Amino acid sequence: MKVCIAQLNYHLGNFESNFSKIKNAIIHAKEQKADLIVFSELAICGYYPIDLLEKKTFVENCDKYLKKIIDLSNNIGIIIGLPTINPSERGKKLFNSAAFIFNGELKKLVHKTLLPTYDIFDEYRHFEPNNVFELIEFNGEKIAITICEDIWDEQKVYGDFGKKTIYNNNPFDILAKLNPDFVINISASPFSYNQVNNRRNVLLDKSIKYSLPILYVNQVGANTDLIFDGGSLAVNSKRQIVLECKYFEEDIQIIDTSLFNSYLEVSGNRNRIEDIYSALTLGIKDYFAKSGFSKAVLGLSGGIDSAVTLAIAVDALGHENVMSILMPAKYSSDHSINDSIEMLKRTSSPYQIVNIENIRLELLNTLNEVFIGTKEDITEENIQARIRGTILMAFSNKFGNILLNTSNKSEFAVGYSTLYGDMNGALSILGDVYKTDVYKLANFINEKHNNIIPQNIINKAPSAELRPNQKDEDSLPPYEILDKILFSYIEKKLSKEEILGFDEETVNYVIKLVNNSEFKRFQAAPILRISSKAFGQGRKFPIVAKY
Amino acid sequence: MKVCIAQLNYHLGNFESNFSKIKNAIIHAKEQKADLIVFSELAICGYYPIDLLEKKTFVENCDKYLKKIIDLSNNIGIIIGLPTINPSERGKKLFNSAAFIFNGELKKLVHKTLLPTYDIFDEYRHFEPNNVFELIEFNGEKIAITICEDIWDEQKVYGDFGKKTIYNNNPFDILAKLNPDFVINISASPFSYNQVNNRRNVLLDKSIKYSLPILYVNQVGANTDLIFDGGSLAVNSKRQIVLECKYFEEDIQIIDTSLFNSYLEVSGNRNRIEDIYSALTLGIKDYFAKSGFSKAVLGLSGGIDSAVTLAIAVDALGHENVMSILMPAKYSSDHSINDSIEMLKRTSSPYQIVNIENIRLELLNTLNEVFIGTKEDITEENIQARIRGTILMAFSNKFGNILLNTSNKSEFAVGYSTLYGDMNGALSILGDVYKTDVYKLANFINEKHNNIIPQNIINKAPSAELRPNQKDEDSLPPYEILDKILFSYIEKKLSKEEILGFDEETVNYVIKLVNNSEFKRFQAAPILRISSKAFGQGRKFPIVAKY
Repeated sequence: MKVCIAQLNYHLGNFESNFSKIKNAIIHAKEQKADLIVFSELAICGYYPIDLLEKKTFVENCDKYLKKIIDLSNNIGIIIGLPTINPSERGKKLFNSAAFIFNGELKKLVHKTLLPTYDIFDEYRHFEPNNVFELIEFNGEKIAITICEDIWDEQKVYGDFGKKTIYNNNPFDILAKLNPDFVINISASPFSYNQVNNRRNVLLDKSIKYSLPILYVNQVGANTDLIFDGGSLAVNSKRQIVLECKYFEEDIQIIDTSLFNSYLEVSGNRNRIEDIYSALTLGIKDYFAKSGFSKAVLGLSGGIDSAVTLAIAVDALGHENVMSILMPAKYSSDHSINDSIEMLKRTSSPYQIVNIENIRLELLNTLNEVFIGTKEDITEENIQARIRGTILMAFSNKFGNILLNTSNKSEFAVGYSTLYGDMNGALSILGDVYKTDVYKLANFINEKHNNIIPQNIINKAPSAELRPNQKDEDSLPPYEILDKILFSYIEKKLSKEEILGFDEETVNYVIKLVNNSEFKRFQAAPILRISSKAFGQGRKFPIVAKY
Repeated sequence: MKVCIAQLNYHLGNFESNFSKIKNAIIHAKEQKADLIVFSELAICGYYPIDLLEKKTFVENCDKYLKKIIDLSNNIGIIIGLPTINPSERGKKLFNSAAFIFNGELKKLVHKTLLPTYDIFDEYRHFEPNNVFELIEFNGEKIAITICEDIWDEQKVYGDFGKKTIYNNNPFDILAKLNPDFVINISASPFSYNQVNNRRNVLLDKSIKYSLPILYVNQVGANTDLIFDGGSLAVNSKRQIVLECKYFEEDIQIIDTSLFNSYLEVSGNRNRIEDIYSALTLGIKDYFAKSGFSKAVLGLSGGIDSAVTLAIAVDALGHENVMSILMPAKYSSDHSINDSIEMLKRTSSPYQIVNIENIRLELLNTLNEVFIGTKEDITEENIQARIRGTILMAFSNKFGNILLNTSNKSEFAVGYSTLYGDMNGALSILGDVYKTDVYKLANFINEKHNNIIPQNIINKAPSAELRPNQKDEDSLPPYEILDKILFSYIEKKLSKEEILGFDEETVNYVIKLVNNSEFKRFQAAPILRISSKAFGQGRKFPIVAKY
């Protein structure tokens, strides 16, 4: 049987556009004489709609477009994901379903069994879990249909609570006992830099454990903060990859199931920094394309974060579409402007210089009477950041350029960023990238893009330049140490007692900074997610609490 | 049997402070010769800890303080809520439990069965549901212990999806069949203005349906955006209220279960506006007390929103602790300042006048070159709002006053507020109060507090005063109409086709404004929740999506 894997980029709630892509893929599959075409999880509406699922018209649209897809199913089997109404009087109102369609008929709806509720996932908010397990029969073969998490029954629990798995049942195990010829899994599995290998291993382990080939169909593209990387796979029953789709782009491939015995040489580990770069580029591209915007603006400071953001944005949107605003003030060093201009020459992207010194002086002058008798402190530093934020937003308002936030994960973590100042932005590009990884990204970008970032920007000591001779490391541990402590605390969820190998006082200080800045992160822009634990919807901590 | 209901105000993660309150209540109960004392859901750690539950030390602390409470249980039974570790190798790592303690022994752990995952709730993220149903025996009586949602099995599904309930089982029904003498429910049930009557009705309906008395123990106090209103209840088996604890304050009451046949005259419906006022006051008070702050700052514009915010803040924090900043500019009318000063006389609270005109001119002057050839538009309006936001934050940074946001729900809904401008603030007081209710609050405040808000502030037409002669109703429908459409769309979740009785174009326009401003609300301050559907964690819509 020839199966077409349709790895597409869906737009949440844009039924017409999604349908048009689905239709084209079906036409292509028919031309290629495919027997079956498989789309990803919730393909008809896009993943994840969150509370759009509470709108009746949204769910009705899913059904309406399902019918249009059924109309295209003459002589081809179609498997596609969508939410469907739970007909029972009890339970959550929807199922997360896969429709199996053939010759103008909806042959079967298969529902998702394992509903993830950790990190960014919240599927039990809307979906009832499945508890009926049957195979479908098609073209003389028996197929087990599973949906995303259904093959992740061994999903580990983070933290040392002694659990083997968070799930009480194992749909793969139940289905395998029904003796299918192969398994299909339709997914919407978001990227994180460790997920690619995880995912391959989960599929390979399952295939050998049950002696079953698996066809895994993922989606690609970004929806606000979540980036889907594609990389759909076919694995045979001998722990071998037979086919792998492209990463970070749409891909339609056809596999003949009689070839399940062959295999493909797949290079081992992927390049982590290259994957992050691709993910961030796709994240920007899709945020703009799916929102109907084309032009960005950012504040270019002469530091590495804004330089890396600029480089990625130029790749994503085109050099002519990324406006840089340079905003020197009293404490800005000359090299900040010179290095920025040198980079802008290399990117050939437009810029404006807006000196904020007069505004700063006028603000201080106006506040003079109110601040009488006080000393200069962080207030005056924040004022500079907020003037810059105001100018960037004024540019954004006036010309319709969308503001990109340039803060990195280390800063967000310890709260070294100014709320309503440099935290401004519609989308944070580096907010899930630790500073030490920002350097690695800079070097990768320079290798890939002909040294677009001046070496001086990479070499200089990090500074916010908000007071004379300020350096980040005056008040923070060196980033090599800081980032390791942060990773232990945030990604690995270790307590301060468990974070070993560092000065105890330093660990306590860093953790205190993280806990004390929940209120800032609560108001942060959406952050492109590239790690297993990004700030944002996947990490929920109370603001008013004793930590 | 004498049962003590301990309705206390807990501080998330502050084990020592919570324990101290719990201990004092136990001492009091012993003095009053109570046989049993009952605390609320997750009392030991506070409700809701969200991902603090993923920290091992947090869960260990719960256990550590449970042991301290066990040490206090000589001659008194104690029922108290806490998270406990699920000992199974499979499933979520924790249970949401009630510990039953007596004479130095943990007699039994009862776990929560129904885990809410709608609106603000996300309990399935961390907890495994219970499936074991047994009574406890104490002092010759058989008691069924339930936890919060366990008595809400008939929880309705919003929206017209044809469901009777979102739950598949009914722990109350199962427990009732074991013939208990009465039922205890420990809760952490957050306030919304329709919840008080809902809750009474759920308890009264259950009591008569099963012919069982119920003791319902709620918590009180606010945690960031969530406000718990107390109002713990004892109802007898004849649909009568026997005891009702205070609302919006701590209360410890003792009830003799032999009195279950008596009843109390409880006045019917509560005053909705008074309840909202009490909730908001408690919300401010606890945000400050639990964060260790005492002083607030806000921008006083001469409009009704900031006036109402000031009045509530003064009640919550004391008049000397609320600093108002008046920030006139070119388009401010004289009455804005005069009315504000008149109100400040009446509240006897401090203020500063900061004229922003020079800063505005300097900003426009600096941007002149960049904006050359463009027309004045919303950019210049936003600049004024952002200068004010910057000045308020400068004051906050310099003096440690926490900034209160003064935007109302109608504004947040349609995006008529400036991100990084008047959207600034650590806590939004009126962000869940529609403009028409803000007026009702103002009148209530004036009745209660001797006309503290000058009538002129209430009477004038709403205006942002960001351009000459601007009025809100120039670009929005009148608030009486706007708020009804918003309520239908947000609270009632109706689609535009289902919102009847208004001009179709107006409905479409309003809904478009709501959908297009998700990106703003994503970066909004936490909003004190007083309705069944507040903006914030309980309402999750994607930013990049086609609506």
